[in-house]
Amino acid sequence: MKYLNAVAMKQFMDDDFMLNSETARHLYHEYADMKKIPVIDYHCHIEAKDIYEDKKFNNITQLWLGEDHYKWRQMRTCGVEEKFITGDASDYEKFQKWSEVLPMLIGNPLYHWSHYELKYYFGYEGTLTPDSCDEVWKLVNEQLAKPEFSARNLIKKSNVEVICTTDDPIDSLEYHKKLNDEGYEVKVLPAWRPDRAAYIEKADFADYIAKLSEVSEINICDFASLKRALCKRMDYFDSVGCKLADNGMAYVMYLPATDEEVDNILKKALAGEAVTAEEELKYKTAFMLFSSDEYYRHGWVMQLHYGVKRDNNSYMFERIGANTGFDCVADYTPSAQLADFLNAANRENKIPKTIVYSLNPVDNTAIQTVIGCFQGGGIKCRVQQGAAWWFNDHFIGMSEHMKSVAANSSLANFVGMLTDSRSFVSYTRHDYFRRIMCDLIGGWVENGEYPNDEKYLKKIVEGIAYYNTKEYFGF
Amino acid sequence: MKYLNAVAMKQFMDDDFMLNSETARHLYHEYADMKKIPVIDYHCHIEAKDIYEDKKFNNITQLWLGEDHYKWRQMRTCGVEEKFITGDASDYEKFQKWSEVLPMLIGNPLYHWSHYELKYYFGYEGTLTPDSCDEVWKLVNEQLAKPEFSARNLIKKSNVEVICTTDDPIDSLEYHKKLNDEGYEVKVLPAWRPDRAAYIEKADFADYIAKLSEVSEINICDFASLKRALCKRMDYFDSVGCKLADNGMAYVMYLPATDEEVDNILKKALAGEAVTAEEELKYKTAFMLFSSDEYYRHGWVMQLHYGVKRDNNSYMFERIGANTGFDCVADYTPSAQLADFLNAANRENKIPKTIVYSLNPVDNTAIQTVIGCFQGGGIKCRVQQGAAWWFNDHFIGMSEHMKSVAANSSLANFVGMLTDSRSFVSYTRHDYFRRIMCDLIGGWVENGEYPNDEKYLKKIVEGIAYYNTKEYFGF
Amino acid sequence: MKYLNAVAMKQFMDDDFMLNSETARHLYHEYADMKKIPVIDYHCHIEAKDIYEDKKFNNITQLWLGEDHYKWRQMRTCGVEEKFITGDASDYEKFQKWSEVLPMLIGNPLYHWSHYELKYYFGYEGTLTPDSCDEVWKLVNEQLAKPEFSARNLIKKSNVEVICTTDDPIDSLEYHKKLNDEGYEVKVLPAWRPDRAAYIEKADFADYIAKLSEVSEINICDFASLKRALCKRMDYFDSVGCKLADNGMAYVMYLPATDEEVDNILKKALAGEAVTAEEELKYKTAFMLFSSDEYYRHGWVMQLHYGVKRDNNSYMFERIGANTGFDCVADYTPSAQLADFLNAANRENKIPKTIVYSLNPVDNTAIQTVIGCFQGGGIKCRVQQGAAWWFNDHFIGMSEHMKSVAANSSLANFVGMLTDSRSFVSYTRHDYFRRIMCDLIGGWVENGEYPNDEKYLKKIVEGIAYYNTKEYFGF
Repeated sequence: MKYLNAVAMKQFMDDDFMLNSETARHLYHEYADMKKIPVIDYHCHIEAKDIYEDKKFNNITQLWLGEDHYKWRQMRTCGVEEKFITGDASDYEKFQKWSEVLPMLIGNPLYHWSHYELKYYFGYEGTLTPDSCDEVWKLVNEQLAKPEFSARNLIKKSNVEVICTTDDPIDSLEYHKKLNDEGYEVKVLPAWRPDRAAYIEKADFADYIAKLSEVSEINICDFASLKRALCKRMDYFDSVGCKLADNGMAYVMYLPATDEEVDNILKKALAGEAVTAEEELKYKTAFMLFSSDEYYRHGWVMQLHYGVKRDNNSYMFERIGANTGFDCVADYTPSAQLADFLNAANRENKIPKTIVYSLNPVDNTAIQTVIGCFQGGGIKCRVQQGAAWWFNDHFIGMSEHMKSVAANSSLANFVGMLTDSRSFVSYTRHDYFRRIMCDLIGGWVENGEYPNDEKYLKKIVEGIAYYNTKEYFGF
Repeated sequence: MKYLNAVAMKQFMDDDFMLNSETARHLYHEYADMKKIPVIDYHCHIEAKDIYEDKKFNNITQLWLGEDHYKWRQMRTCGVEEKFITGDASDYEKFQKWSEVLPMLIGNPLYHWSHYELKYYFGYEGTLTPDSCDEVWKLVNEQLAKPEFSARNLIKKSNVEVICTTDDPIDSLEYHKKLNDEGYEVKVLPAWRPDRAAYIEKADFADYIAKLSEVSEINICDFASLKRALCKRMDYFDSVGCKLADNGMAYVMYLPATDEEVDNILKKALAGEAVTAEEELKYKTAFMLFSSDEYYRHGWVMQLHYGVKRDNNSYMFERIGANTGFDCVADYTPSAQLADFLNAANRENKIPKTIVYSLNPVDNTAIQTVIGCFQGGGIKCRVQQGAAWWFNDHFIGMSEHMKSVAANSSLANFVGMLTDSRSFVSYTRHDYFRRIMCDLIGGWVENGEYPNDEKYLKKIVEGIAYYNTKEYFGF
Repeated sequence: MKYLNAVAMKQFMDDDFMLNSETARHLYHEYADMKKIPVIDYHCHIEAKDIYEDKKFNNITQLWLGEDHYKWRQMRTCGVEEKFITGDASDYEKFQKWSEVLPMLIGNPLYHWSHYELKYYFGYEGTLTPDSCDEVWKLVNEQLAKPEFSARNLIKKSNVEVICTTDDPIDSLEYHKKLNDEGYEVKVLPAWRPDRAAYIEKADFADYIAKLSEVSEINICDFASLKRALCKRMDYFDSVGCKLADNGMAYVMYLPATDEEVDNILKKALAGEAVTAEEELKYKTAFMLFSSDEYYRHGWVMQLHYGVKRDNNSYMFERIGANTGFDCVADYTPSAQLADFLNAANRENKIPKTIVYSLNPVDNTAIQTVIGCFQGGGIKCRVQQGAAWWFNDHFIGMSEHMKSVAANSSLANFVGMLTDSRSFVSYTRHDYFRRIMCDLIGGWVENGEYPNDEKYLKKIVEGIAYYNTKEYFGF
């Protein structure tokens, strides 16, 4: 950011947005542009039902502010009353408030994402402010009324090839099957997220297990029967095309216990009794080791998402519930236990492909060094650190993550971006990521840190944008 | 810092110091220059008495090296004997040693601050080295002899509008009242720092409480009477214009206890008995929840300063005491307890405006995500992360902090800089901060990451430099 | 890395590699170039025997891939089968695999180090890829066959003045003495690494102590006799020129105990009984305090290396043992205990010169602030943070470390680089470091953050490259 005298100012978010060298621009426009190179979104929170039913949106508030707790959080931060966020104000009023907030989000990823979406999907080249609020409201709503702005058409417009949703073991996967049966051109695959079977400390655990018994038609009364039930459901998920699992946890823990201990802990919980903190850790360790083995057997990728503390504002939780913008980083994420767990998972050299995500960016180096201990088996980056996640999904988070991967592992083999989103217009984040990736790599070339070798640069950039993901997951 | 070929070298600390783009220069010179936009120094360690008595300085050693343990620390680091730091060497000898040390502090904020102060207050454009030592000694001392270099005139020359000192609940605030009574043009307001009433583990706790009983004219024998005494003193501080409180702690802890437990712990300590580590945490949790409620009731801002371990060098402590340059970062600062404490403080949606400072810069993201859970009430950035503090008060610390605020919160609503200083010539740090802030924002604009929209840029830059603080604290 | 339009692309790794300003280039070429300014490698893992016997290498695989677990790790990461790493594939096949892996290590320090070594030692200016594999194999092997590519000649070619090896207290130091006796032009000095006497929790502890008894001719039966034995060996090391010690540990701990307790713990371990975790901490604390005192008495520098968890992959450990690329960062490294230990070591103001290394780069600020509490005694940077270590030994790690040193301490007094390597061609890492150091300092000058004062810039750059180390250790 220094010595700019000799260089002209760039226009806001032009075609070379985030691309600060000739090589960066070349790499992006040739090998990474989302319009040319498809998107594989291997982890998101979209509902298969919405795709199947080809959901439509009445207005930009429904599209943008309906479920997006990232935006809600920033509205609260900027002094907007709750009425205009999750309350009973009209959709127009809510959008108007958002137009007041957005200019104050200088340096925030929402500033970039919002304008990128306006430009890519709706062709709007201006900026959203209270002055342009009505213009944008009208322009976008007119387009949303057209058939080409349905969920499926937005996905098509985004050049998406594969979408992996996030699903509970008891889910029927009805809509995934229907989409597949009709031969929908985009692969919409389920992903296994068995958190409710792992969260033994929750009040609704026993109820959940009862439902799982019912759906699996296996009477769950101990750890063995629980494992049988889960395996049966995994086989079912596998038959519907599942390729990956996802486990959420406070941190990757390792407190081994005997089978008998685990059994007793589970029975206690099924009887409705509270388990101790130590029992919780033992059960979850056993649960994860079982899961890891089964993921390996199914050829699935294991994702570990941790470092989160949820629902921190009780006052708001009582009023508007979960996933409303009140989560934070939990900074107790011991690297030693991560290493011990992965070691146990690898005890017979049968660790599944694994992607590790911590919500705390200061874990980057520790994670990189831990996963470096479990590479092998002739697999490229068998264990990976996932793309900068959630609160880190911005320029700094992405570039620091990629530099850390490069310095400690092999950036060229990284599986790249995902949206982790509930939105049908967030695919532009893949493009945003690709620009940052090309700028980083292009900068190294311009600076004499990597040769200007077209063959390898093409391979590396296309790999991170698309091919690595395809190969790693086996899509 | 790359590809500089086409660009001329900048002169050392010229008018465009730290301003590396046209936009950055424009924003600073128009909207942030300390000579144009006043300074609000909402947290410092200046004595109101020194202002009232319009303190004068005999020489630059008294002004610069008399109380500044930042400089002492670097002198020790650079191999200067203690005699020339806090010992009985002459003021001239001490200054001479400092002139030897300063050139070795390349990349250190003291290098910038010292030269900025020489330039701004004394018009000295050169650099301080052993060669220029005598010249500077003479030049500065001649000026210090003049009336226009008294404490009040230095404050005036710094365009300061408000100063908040740091005061103990038992303080009479005599000089704040005198300054107010005489109609002094700068607001000099007290700030409530009740640490001695919180530090139940200290040997002098009972003695302190006895003094507080005396000053408050309330016999403190249990937690209820302690709270009454503190409330009475808060009302008094409020009447003298207090707008904010400040609490120091190892970390923001959360270990709730019953009233009875807290009462018993306090009684034990008042009887001169030692409390256990757990009792200390319980008492301090209760103390902070009470404090938070009362700050809310008074409309005060709550500051939380943590992550420090003090007086680490026993050998030196026995010889020269506290605040002499032997403190460090304590890196146990659990984000989960910070979240739990703020949640408890907010149990009736009545959390006071709060500013959180950790001495450990790796906490930036965790803090940003925690405070994001307690925004609301229609207040702009109700909970903020304070400006890069103490050991982080340098280019890297400030710019990483501001980028983190921007990425996770709203930089545009940030209350900005404070000096935290004992010095009358440290206001230039506000200007240093403003240059870095304008460079960051100007860089985004030049790079196409924010539109070149004069209206919003003015609003954002002036806000961070001045208006946000004025509005947030209600000065 | 922005606004490059006006500037030409740099050639890969040319003479101005990593030097991005006129001042940076000037400083490096005048005051830091390894060919002009000698190398002092004060910490490495080379065997004195290999120097004495003037080891030769049959081919580049032996030179590069024989012992280098950094490279092994990246080969596994990039999907190479173990057979081609530590297995029975031929040297040529292993090199061929490495040539496939290297281009995928964009942004990795191995990419730079490998090409820097090819260029500096073997005059190869191209890049290693599968296409150039045979050419490089032939070129390097031909040269390795020549006498001028023996260990001693590689050291000479590297302009090395001092090498400090890493030695166990029971080591005879036979080859250090032989080298000294023959008047070898490079000082090859032993360094004291008593880890095996500290690791009381290890199964082979008692056996090791038995060997130490034998070598020292002191019957070790309690802590007093252990200390006598170690002192005797320290005196011996001192007589062979030892100037520094090195202690490895999980973290710098502080759990004081009485002499009697320590004695009992040691006796328990000598009797072959397992010690508890608390006993281990107590013994190690006592061991380190004793060590610190003795280092002070001998005028040695104490190095503390911590933050590592070793041998994490049991499956591989059982097959190929230790130091094969399965270590990681252990992120429990409490700054409070580091401060308490250094304080105890300094109880009579007799702390030895000390260099602190954590494997976790997030500790930078905490370490800098802790060591700032133990400066003094008229010694320049009595306590230092060591150069970016192991997994951090790359551009980001080095530059963040140096910026942190500058911001919190005195970069101008930093003792600079070491290789920590087992290789005779890794001295180019000193040059790599010096380029990054000159780029950092040159950038500050060009940016008006430090005056363009040739006298001080020369002093600072030559100091960090060479003179500070010479003076600090007393070589």
